[in-house]
Amino acid sequence: MAKRIYLDYAATTPLDARVEKAMKPYLSKSFGNTMSLHNFGQEAKLVLEESREEVASLMGANPGEIFFTGSATESNNLALKGVAFANKNKGKHIIISAIEHPCVLESARWLKSQGFEVTKVGVDKYGIVDPEDIKKAIKKDTILVSIIHASNEIGTIQPIEKIGKICRDKDVYFHTDAAQSLGKLPIDVKKMNIDLLTASSHKMYGPKGAACLFIREGVKVEPILHGGGQESGLRSSTVNIPAIVGFAKACQICKQEMDAEGKRLTLLRDKLIKGVLKIKGSYLNGDPKNRLPNNANFRFDFVEGESLIIQLDLLGVAVSTGSACSSIKLEPSHVLMALGLKAEQAHGSMRVTLGRWTTKEEIDYLIKVLPGIIKQLRVISPFKR
Amino acid sequence: MAKRIYLDYAATTPLDARVEKAMKPYLSKSFGNTMSLHNFGQEAKLVLEESREEVASLMGANPGEIFFTGSATESNNLALKGVAFANKNKGKHIIISAIEHPCVLESARWLKSQGFEVTKVGVDKYGIVDPEDIKKAIKKDTILVSIIHASNEIGTIQPIEKIGKICRDKDVYFHTDAAQSLGKLPIDVKKMNIDLLTASSHKMYGPKGAACLFIREGVKVEPILHGGGQESGLRSSTVNIPAIVGFAKACQICKQEMDAEGKRLTLLRDKLIKGVLKIKGSYLNGDPKNRLPNNANFRFDFVEGESLIIQLDLLGVAVSTGSACSSIKLEPSHVLMALGLKAEQAHGSMRVTLGRWTTKEEIDYLIKVLPGIIKQLRVISPFKR
Repeated sequence: MAKRIYLDYAATTPLDARVEKAMKPYLSKSFGNTMSLHNFGQEAKLVLEESREEVASLMGANPGEIFFTGSATESNNLALKGVAFANKNKGKHIIISAIEHPCVLESARWLKSQGFEVTKVGVDKYGIVDPEDIKKAIKKDTILVSIIHASNEIGTIQPIEKIGKICRDKDVYFHTDAAQSLGKLPIDVKKMNIDLLTASSHKMYGPKGAACLFIREGVKVEPILHGGGQESGLRSSTVNIPAIVGFAKACQICKQEMDAEGKRLTLLRDKLIKGVLKIKGSYLNGDPKNRLPNNANFRFDFVEGESLIIQLDLLGVAVSTGSACSSIKLEPSHVLMALGLKAEQAHGSMRVTLGRWTTKEEIDYLIKVLPGIIKQLRVISPFKR
Repeated sequence: MAKRIYLDYAATTPLDARVEKAMKPYLSKSFGNTMSLHNFGQEAKLVLEESREEVASLMGANPGEIFFTGSATESNNLALKGVAFANKNKGKHIIISAIEHPCVLESARWLKSQGFEVTKVGVDKYGIVDPEDIKKAIKKDTILVSIIHASNEIGTIQPIEKIGKICRDKDVYFHTDAAQSLGKLPIDVKKMNIDLLTASSHKMYGPKGAACLFIREGVKVEPILHGGGQESGLRSSTVNIPAIVGFAKACQICKQEMDAEGKRLTLLRDKLIKGVLKIKGSYLNGDPKNRLPNNANFRFDFVEGESLIIQLDLLGVAVSTGSACSSIKLEPSHVLMALGLKAEQAHGSMRVTLGRWTTKEEIDYLIKVLPGIIKQLRVISPFKR
């Protein structure tokens, strides 16, 4: 196989060498447990609080409002279930969108089995939630609205600030899953009226195993992992210092490089979109402008997405059909279906997500090989006219 | 400060250099998401299954019975809550011991708030659970018995095989928290009649952020983290491949070295016990023989444990009062209280836990400096006669 080209940065990212270097001292030298009274423990506690400040500063939060978890999935579960259980005396109604990540959808589904009521608001054909729909959906017993900041599949960016304002005015908690956006888009939790926010380390060149939930001071949340009382009692488990140090370093790097990198990726992304859309019967999924700088999502008439992924993989190019989490399922993407696409259109989709090491040459290569593959797949397609 | 001496291996362990080396390729080179269809994803999936086999083999399990989680706390929460929710139609009664880790105690306490009934069985003065007490406590609606294999505080080893047999005969699920014992004591889940077992990577020289729950085939468990459906739907979250690879390597090393290392540590531990008990008014907590090879837990008349820890820390020696998780609380250890000790006796305790890099010289140093510190603390003690 030729040199491999990774264009699936939304699924996960390689660890940045600077992050790896920052983590190293905490593996076998300064490896203490934050709960220990001795010097090893105090060292760990100190770097934990420094890391909390770093992560907080990327989103305009206070350090005391950052709670470290093990994954964005855990943070989203904690946000939904934790708010639901802690506020059930106030009400049992929750609002989400139709294009949330599976961990929000499934947490909401589980809450339904526990007696909560869930409303799913739809999106327009570009995948945008209308804040007015949120306003209409809020009832007297609504306790939480959870809307993904930027879609992991189609990259569409939601009008978070407006939705947050509506929730604040109605005295309803507002959570946003920013796993794909923190470090790529500027976020200010205060200005954007956000009460809870999920962020993930391994989507921004940090290690897997670290994530956080921002919880605005005063917001009531019940833990989902009970035990030793780490993270102010909200997330028991030995604190994963090396991963958290890496997450913090990843945040620091994104903070410094976000503007320039966003511009660079936007140019590459638009070059890719322009190149791919030259193929007859090809379309862009999601909003043409209002999307993550690193996301492009296409569909092709009479092409089966998984076959496309496999053909590209044989040429050393790694892209995906939709989210990584949904890729082993056979159902069409719920996000693409929410845009109003038919099942066969959704099945003919390809997500390309760019990142820190994506080059112009890589994009050129994809643009070069894609027409041939599409043509070949259309010859064998059962869908063609 | 002189060279630091770490004698708190039960709180957490440094990463073994061999483990770090094994993890390295999966950080920035083979970093794929296990759910991705492409080559990067398939590489990750392959090494995940290899790791599962390695971890399974250390406890005599089938690979398909190992479910990776992010921490032993999460595994214990999953065992208790997952079994409780999945089997509540069968019954709502759970049995634990009085000396469980806080994450088992707190999960049980939370289940009580959800309508479950919890019975806590006591221990004898050495910290041993009498299997007959379990037999007596089992009722018609008992669904789960959870007993820690080896105490994190006093190192006492429970008669797991007998307890497992009783549970199997009564058709009640049996879970054991083996976070402190896997890799130190031989474990065979089949022979020991274990239905669910918790193990932790960072207690055995693997990285933080990886753990597992063994679930015997056929045992019904509900997930606590909902989402993309990783780990056969039982633990959603992007799979933390580098940490899991490290955990597997840690298991492999323990498997090879357990016997010899156990003998080496037992000699050092007994040397320590002999040396410390020469101090007047000093006692060993827990069972003199039936304990982990690396655990010694002492109490001293008229000495406050935290002051002792701090004085030793000033000399560069890291030990603890009880479990790391409880060390910031001011209450006396629930484990020591369960032995029948008085609060002031429990407060005068010191846990010393040895590990892979503990040397005879380190033990000699502790034996040398301890009498002076004890003497000095007794002079200022408010408890003295």
